[in-house]
Amino acid sequence: MDLWKLTAAEALERLRSQEITVEQYATSLLDRISKRDDDVKAWAYLDAGSILAQARLMDKVPVSQRRQLHGVPVAVKDIILTQSEDNSRDVWRLSLIVPLDMPTEHGSIIYKDSQPGIDAASVALLREAGCLIFAKTTTTEFASSFIGTKTRNAHSVSHTPGGSSSGSGAAVADFQIPIALGSQTMGSIVRPASYNGVYGFKPTHNVISREGQKFCAPSFDTIGFFARSVADIQLLADAFNLQDCDEGPYTDVKGLKFAVCTTVQWELADEGTVKAMAKAVQLLRAHGAHVEELELGDDFDPVVTWHSQITMTEAGATFLPEYRHSKNQLGERLIQWVNDTHRLTREEKLEAYDGLAALRPRFDKMADKYDAVIVPSVVGEAPEGLVVTGDPVLASTWTALHVPVVNVPGFVGSNGMPIGLSMVAARLRDRHLLKVVEVAGRIFEREGGWSQRST
Amino acid sequence: MDLWKLTAAEALERLRSQEITVEQYATSLLDRISKRDDDVKAWAYLDAGSILAQARLMDKVPVSQRRQLHGVPVAVKDIILTQSEDNSRDVWRLSLIVPLDMPTEHGSIIYKDSQPGIDAASVALLREAGCLIFAKTTTTEFASSFIGTKTRNAHSVSHTPGGSSSGSGAAVADFQIPIALGSQTMGSIVRPASYNGVYGFKPTHNVISREGQKFCAPSFDTIGFFARSVADIQLLADAFNLQDCDEGPYTDVKGLKFAVCTTVQWELADEGTVKAMAKAVQLLRAHGAHVEELELGDDFDPVVTWHSQITMTEAGATFLPEYRHSKNQLGERLIQWVNDTHRLTREEKLEAYDGLAALRPRFDKMADKYDAVIVPSVVGEAPEGLVVTGDPVLASTWTALHVPVVNVPGFVGSNGMPIGLSMVAARLRDRHLLKVVEVAGRIFEREGGWSQRST
Repeated sequence: MDLWKLTAAEALERLRSQEITVEQYATSLLDRISKRDDDVKAWAYLDAGSILAQARLMDKVPVSQRRQLHGVPVAVKDIILTQSEDNSRDVWRLSLIVPLDMPTEHGSIIYKDSQPGIDAASVALLREAGCLIFAKTTTTEFASSFIGTKTRNAHSVSHTPGGSSSGSGAAVADFQIPIALGSQTMGSIVRPASYNGVYGFKPTHNVISREGQKFCAPSFDTIGFFARSVADIQLLADAFNLQDCDEGPYTDVKGLKFAVCTTVQWELADEGTVKAMAKAVQLLRAHGAHVEELELGDDFDPVVTWHSQITMTEAGATFLPEYRHSKNQLGERLIQWVNDTHRLTREEKLEAYDGLAALRPRFDKMADKYDAVIVPSVVGEAPEGLVVTGDPVLASTWTALHVPVVNVPGFVGSNGMPIGLSMVAARLRDRHLLKVVEVAGRIFEREGGWSQRST
Repeated sequence: MDLWKLTAAEALERLRSQEITVEQYATSLLDRISKRDDDVKAWAYLDAGSILAQARLMDKVPVSQRRQLHGVPVAVKDIILTQSEDNSRDVWRLSLIVPLDMPTEHGSIIYKDSQPGIDAASVALLREAGCLIFAKTTTTEFASSFIGTKTRNAHSVSHTPGGSSSGSGAAVADFQIPIALGSQTMGSIVRPASYNGVYGFKPTHNVISREGQKFCAPSFDTIGFFARSVADIQLLADAFNLQDCDEGPYTDVKGLKFAVCTTVQWELADEGTVKAMAKAVQLLRAHGAHVEELELGDDFDPVVTWHSQITMTEAGATFLPEYRHSKNQLGERLIQWVNDTHRLTREEKLEAYDGLAALRPRFDKMADKYDAVIVPSVVGEAPEGLVVTGDPVLASTWTALHVPVVNVPGFVGSNGMPIGLSMVAARLRDRHLLKVVEVAGRIFEREGGWSQRST
């Protein structure tokens, strides 16, 4: 069979039973990549030789010493540091001295060939869990720009994959890798997840360490995951020790309570998203779930503005070193942020911080009445063209509120491209949300009009 | 004259006028260090050869190409990444390819000899501003432990310098370096600043990028500065583009309005701190300032607990990779944090987050009525012994409230060791606070009983 078609959980089962080797699995993914890379171009850096060398060494690790995710390949968004040589001091890994030469370039010419020498916390943790740190995926400039990368949508070479986690979204959707790390400050996980038709999970702010991930606006920056199944996201959530409540698991959506919330900038949603929302409600009801409308109220109107004000202010501090060092190699948006760091008054900045902080518990209280709240991920299908990565605005409210959000695929737009919806929950209900998404997503994938497919 | 006695601002003036060279200044500091290092042991890593090589290269830079802080030596707390080779691409610095071999060890055996290939944002910015990135100062384990390092107090080999920025506080106080970077999650800047008798500044949360600084609890982690004069802190604040309001400068404290706030755990303050507070009030009044009592109210009682709950929760996520990788090389406190990440319920965690968030604007409103609020920095003088670094508890309220705080030296305890007080202001009044501290500190230093002194 084509091993590249497996989800991470399916591959892991076969790896554990020694039905397949890490090398066989990696080889299959590399075959898939070599067929598809000319079209999708999801990789910022990939060295097949180094991947296979690592895989072969992993196959030599005695079974008794294998970790929970032994041999599972993971792609890493290229704003997340990866050490360029394996200089870890583990005994079993001492044999693994492979010159990886894996740079971290942040989608910026300023960091061309930059070799940070250290792993981000997330990468260190996954390496420690036994993952094969496979390759780096493309990102828009510092995960901050809306200008497209070389990457194309997994389902159309003429459509954007979204951003900023462009490569992670496209590579997972195109079956080139089962799971990938991404990051979100506005909508950089849910947008590419929706445009490419995969699951994208942004956890509650600060529950997973983003140390070693390029900053943009630290009040919002969050690390997250892409996968083609919720089970794979659960694997990663386990590895990151994400815990909250012991609700679920659920066998189906029957009796679960959902809200549909179209308060925030719903007028921007196009026909594809409007239809997807209606279809989601219809499907959930047909399967026995309760679905209500949720109106957040006028107090939530300034959220998008506040989010953008804080982003501008904090990103101005973040990119000051690059601005001072290499302004001429920095995109216009980033230059503007630095120039605008102090454009707002102190009062305006604090109003944004405190306004958002006050709304967080209020949203939680509303969301706690439901198993999940359904909101749009994006305006609609991936727009045509590769120059811009699409509009993140419908996602920024949930990032600003620090709540967990999952893009759930399953719907399709009038151009035949995938559309996902976001399911959100109150803060620190991440695992609960994943359990709900597991049963809801199953229905959406089966009956929504879009399913995981490989070109 | 002894160049090592100069503040950064004084040295910069002489460097700019070419009265002295970078090499002469660095040589003088190295002489001072070689005399004093056996006693103080402030350095985690220092390579005199590399420092002098850099200094000589800096002296060759044409005057027209020199940056604002050209040749100013800065010490860096060893939880802040410094690239191990100069691989920058500046034309003028291409000649500066010195193998620095400067590790970043985080005060942990796990990172012994770790050579990151990148600078933290703060270091990159200061390098770009022309600073001589001099050497690394000691830190307690990951800036998170209260177990002492090898470093002694600048004024007594038998007293702790405080922590976690132990080396930065002691080195600046001992005239081994004019300025140093530190970090604060609880009281890791103000405590060593108070114990060693120097200025320590923790800005408003997130106004300076802490990218590339080891995380502990990202909701509180802040980068800051040590110096022997407020003018030096202003130099750094300029370099970091810190701006807020255009109040001041003040020529003296006459007419300024202060509050003294002893609401938070004042019962823990010992005689030295109590006397210092009384003296401060008396001096300010004698010089024409208004000083009132400020009572925060019972609502602020849980702040210290909430701070510690969030720290425990977030630090548990932060240190998970190290825990998984090298638990046996991790201190007990950090192991406990990881074990306790999920000890609190979701409700307790959110109560802490939202409780603090709601108090921030309330404190701002109170503090805005004054030019600065005076609070204790620490319990009292540096405790005797090197095993523990002292209690940060009196500082954590201001870190939790995200407000700017400066330890202002000038007072002395019954053992003849320095005691400082903290001046705080509302969020984003950092520059205003520095201007106030400039005039108040001058009085404290002259009449409080303690002045900058070299052993």
